Amino acid sequence: MPRVYRGQDICPVARTMDIIGQRWTVLILRDLSRGMRRYSELLESLGGIPSNLLSERLKQLEADGIVTRVLYSEHPPRAEYELTEKGKALGPVIKAMYRWGTEWQPREEPAEARSR
Amino acid sequence: MPRVYRGQDICPVARTMDIIGQRWTVLILRDLSRGMRRYSELLESLGGIPSNLLSERLKQLEADGIVTRVLYSEHPPRAEYELTEKGKALGPVIKAMYRWGTEWQPREEPAEARSR
Repeated sequence: MPRVYRGQDICPVARTMDIIGQRWTVLILRDLSRGMRRYSELLESLGGIPSNLLSERLKQLEADGIVTRVLYSEHPPRAEYELTEKGKALGPVIKAMYRWGTEWQPREEPAEARSR
Repeated sequence: MPRVYRGQDICPVARTMDIIGQRWTVLILRDLSRGMRRYSELLESLGGIPSNLLSERLKQLEADGIVTRVLYSEHPPRAEYELTEKGKALGPVIKAMYRWGTEWQPREEPAEARSR
């Protein structure tokens, strides 16, 4: 599998970023860790993600052992996604991001509100 | 400034990823938090990063209030980079990535070693 930081792979931070560093991946993990399981729920929550990109990211996360895909209906084929133990272990990373964003990066006011 | 996850900006995780989610940014922050200060040190440590990309990332981090740039020589102009309080506050994010990478994503053995 292609990795961005192969030359840095002695570093655990670089190895982590090679798994979660692609665009949207952390937000997919956020939603799965909140208990979302269905493709359609993820697609709706991640307003703006192209559907083929969500599908690609989920496949990569499955290949990396972060997510399992479980068929819950055969006709039509429907799957649910769940975090593995390895995926759940990313919880502290997401929580640390949540805390930093809350404390240090407030939501920007829309320009309209500011000009009033 | 363009943000990837603007539609998600109610979420602190998305706001954090909009600051640190670009390729190489986390590894630059890792090196600065280890005490590296000079452009040349960063360039060497981040073997493989194109120099113009490092320069662009540092400018963006400065614009985001994560890094300060201090001139330590005028002739020739030379600068050092330092984390601000806001930048240092990202420490727990990087530490959580370090722990996860150490525990869950071991370094892959080179193919040569495996075939022996």
